[in-house]
Amino acid sequence: MRDVAIIGIGQTQIREHWDTGLRQLALQAVQVAMADANVTQADALYVGNMLSGTLADQEHLGALVADSAGLRGVEAFKVEAACASGAAALRMGTMAVASGMANVVVVVGVEKMTDALASDITTATALATDGDYEAAQGLPLVAVHALLMRRYMHEYGYSHQDFAPFAVNAHRNGKNNPHAMFRFPVTAEQFAKAQMVCDPINLLDSSAACDGAAAVVLASADAARVLSPAPIRIAGSAVGTDTLAVHDRRDPLVLDAAVLSARRAYGQAGVGPQDVDLFELHDACGIMAALSLEAAGFADKGQGLRLALEGEIGIEGCVPVATMGGLKARGHPVGATGIYQAVEVVQQLRGLAGANQVPDARIGMAQSIGGSGATVITHILQRMDS
Amino acid sequence: MRDVAIIGIGQTQIREHWDTGLRQLALQAVQVAMADANVTQADALYVGNMLSGTLADQEHLGALVADSAGLRGVEAFKVEAACASGAAALRMGTMAVASGMANVVVVVGVEKMTDALASDITTATALATDGDYEAAQGLPLVAVHALLMRRYMHEYGYSHQDFAPFAVNAHRNGKNNPHAMFRFPVTAEQFAKAQMVCDPINLLDSSAACDGAAAVVLASADAARVLSPAPIRIAGSAVGTDTLAVHDRRDPLVLDAAVLSARRAYGQAGVGPQDVDLFELHDACGIMAALSLEAAGFADKGQGLRLALEGEIGIEGCVPVATMGGLKARGHPVGATGIYQAVEVVQQLRGLAGANQVPDARIGMAQSIGGSGATVITHILQRMDS
Repeated sequence: MRDVAIIGIGQTQIREHWDTGLRQLALQAVQVAMADANVTQADALYVGNMLSGTLADQEHLGALVADSAGLRGVEAFKVEAACASGAAALRMGTMAVASGMANVVVVVGVEKMTDALASDITTATALATDGDYEAAQGLPLVAVHALLMRRYMHEYGYSHQDFAPFAVNAHRNGKNNPHAMFRFPVTAEQFAKAQMVCDPINLLDSSAACDGAAAVVLASADAARVLSPAPIRIAGSAVGTDTLAVHDRRDPLVLDAAVLSARRAYGQAGVGPQDVDLFELHDACGIMAALSLEAAGFADKGQGLRLALEGEIGIEGCVPVATMGGLKARGHPVGATGIYQAVEVVQQLRGLAGANQVPDARIGMAQSIGGSGATVITHILQRMDS
Repeated sequence: MRDVAIIGIGQTQIREHWDTGLRQLALQAVQVAMADANVTQADALYVGNMLSGTLADQEHLGALVADSAGLRGVEAFKVEAACASGAAALRMGTMAVASGMANVVVVVGVEKMTDALASDITTATALATDGDYEAAQGLPLVAVHALLMRRYMHEYGYSHQDFAPFAVNAHRNGKNNPHAMFRFPVTAEQFAKAQMVCDPINLLDSSAACDGAAAVVLASADAARVLSPAPIRIAGSAVGTDTLAVHDRRDPLVLDAAVLSARRAYGQAGVGPQDVDLFELHDACGIMAALSLEAAGFADKGQGLRLALEGEIGIEGCVPVATMGGLKARGHPVGATGIYQAVEVVQQLRGLAGANQVPDARIGMAQSIGGSGATVITHILQRMDS
C-alpha cells in the first residue's frame, strides 16, 4: 500500500452561482487544482456530490465532470455519503492511489443547490436522514440537529447563548477568506437576536444553502516529492458509520461514527488529538461542532462547548476550528464541503492561510459528518517535511 | 497491489417488490452473499445505486444498508455512475481490497423503482443523459437509444426485425433463472408485433422498471484460497468514460468508453475476447448489446447484430450473452444490474448455472453501460484453478 499525498488544490467562491452550471463550477475548481499541481493529465476523477439528482436535474457526474475538465476517457464516478460526500470521494481517491491502480487522481466536490425552491432544498437535504423513521415524520435535517441541541442543553445545563462562540469564531475567520460566502463578523449579541430557524437553532447557528466546488489532486507520496514543492501527506483516512435514525443510537449525544472514524485515522497516522494543530470540523450548526470536538477526543463528554466558551477554538487557541470560516461562514455546499475542508487544511499546512494562519501548522485534521452522524469521515493531513 | 477475489454471491428475485423497502431488499441480498462466503463481518460495504434520491426518498444508503445488514460502524458509501452504478461499486470494492485498506468487503447493488409513477421513472432515468443538451430537450434515455438504433439500421442496412435474436435469447435464458423478472420465452414473431415504446424500440426490445438487489463479498485472492471452496478472481476491473451527450461523441455508433474499458480490462487480465467463455453485456435494448459486442472486440463495426443473427450469442455459441436472462429478461434494476451481472458470471464459473450452464466456463466478462455510453465498466472474472 502506497502513501498518498495532495499535490494541488482549487476552489470556487461559495455563493449563489445563478450564472454558472454544475459542470462549469466543477470545472473551475478542477482547473485551479490541476494548475496548482502542475499536471495536465490524470488517471481518474471522483466526484463528491449529494444532491445533483434532486436539485440540479443531473446524475452521472463522474463522466460529465471528467469530460468537461478535459479528462474524457478516464475512470470517473460519483460518490455519495450525504453531507460527507466530498470526504467520501477523497477517501476513494486515496484508495485508488494507495492501491497502485491510479497514479494521479483528481477529486472534486461540487454542489449546486440554489436553483431550487427553499422547500425543495429542505426536502432534498432530508434525504440524509432516515426516510422512513425521520423524514417521513416531518423531520428535516435541521430539526434532528435541533432536537440534539435541546437535549445537549438539558443534559449539561448550557444556555442557548453558550453556542454563540462557534458562529462568532467562524465569521471572524470567514471575513479573511476570499472564497467564503459570508465575509462579515457577527457578534454574540447578534447571535442572541437572530431569527429562529428551528428552535433552538437560529439563523446565525446554521449554514445556508449555496453553490460551490473544490478540488484536490492526489499522487503517491513518492511521486509527490518530485512533483510538488510542498506536498501534504494523507496520514490518516478513515470512515465510521452509525444508524441514520438518531433514536436507534447508543447515546444520541455521542457520535459513535466520529469516535470510530477519528480513532481509526489517529491509528493510521500514529498521532492523537494533542498533535493536531487545526481541526476543520463539520459546524453545520454549533451542536454538531461540539459533538465532533468531543468524539474526536478534544474534549470530554459535554465539554465541547466549554472549549469554545474558553476561547480555545480560535486561531491562537489549543484547537483552532473553522479556520477559513467553516460551514457556517465559508459555506456548506453539501457534497463539496469535505473537499473545501481538505483544501483549507492544505492551505494551513503550506503556510498560505494569510491572516488566518495557524502558527507553524504541521498536522491538520478534517472531519465531515453525513446527516446527523450516520457517516463520519476523518482525514489527517501532514506536512511531508515534518 | 493485491489480487482480489469474489468469495460470496447473493441476489433477490427481480420484480415489483411493493411489499419490501430499499433497505430490506439490500439486506436480503447481503445476507445471502455473506452466508455464501461464510463470513459474519466485513471491513467495508459499498452500495451501487442510481435513483434512491429521486425514486425512493432516501440518500445516504451506505450507512443505511451497513446498519440494516448488521455491519454498523464499518466504512460505507454509495457509488453512482448512472446505469453502471453497481459495477462502479464493485470497482470501488476491488480497489479497497487491492490497496490493503480492507480485507473483507461487501458490495451491494440495489434499486427500488416501482413505487414511483411511470412518468417519474422516465424523468429519473433521464438523469443519466446530459441534462442540459439531451434531457432538457425532451429526450429520455430510451429515446437516445432509439436514435442510435435508427442510425445503426440506416448505416449498416439492418431491419428492425434483425434485433429480435437478442430478446429471444434473453427470454430463453431468463426462463430458467429463478431470480429473473420475466420467466417466459418470446418468439421473433412476438417481437415483430410488440407495441412500440419509442420508435424503433418496442416493448420486447427494452428492459422494464423493476426492483432488486444483488451482492458480492470480496477478499484478497490469498485469503480467498483459504475462505472459499470456489473463489473467483477479479482478473480485470476497468472503467472508461466518454461525453454524456451523444452528439459530442467521435462516432455515435462506437462506444469509445467501452473500447477503453474493455482494452484496459483485457490488459490487466492478460486475455483477449477469444478467451472469454461468456459475456454478461448491458442489453438494456438490442442496440446497446450490439454496440457492446463490437466495442469489446467480439465483432467488427456493424457486425454485432450479425453475431446474434447467426446464433452465436446462445449458450452454445461462440460468445454466450445474457446467460441468465440479461437486462431484458432477468431485469434491469438500474443501480443493481452491475452486481447481478457479476453474480451470474460467478454462477457460471462455479458451474452452478443449471440449465443455462456454459460448458466448462473458466473466464467470464461483465460490462455495464452508464447512460448511452458515457461510463462503461468491464470486469473479467476467472476461476482460480484456471
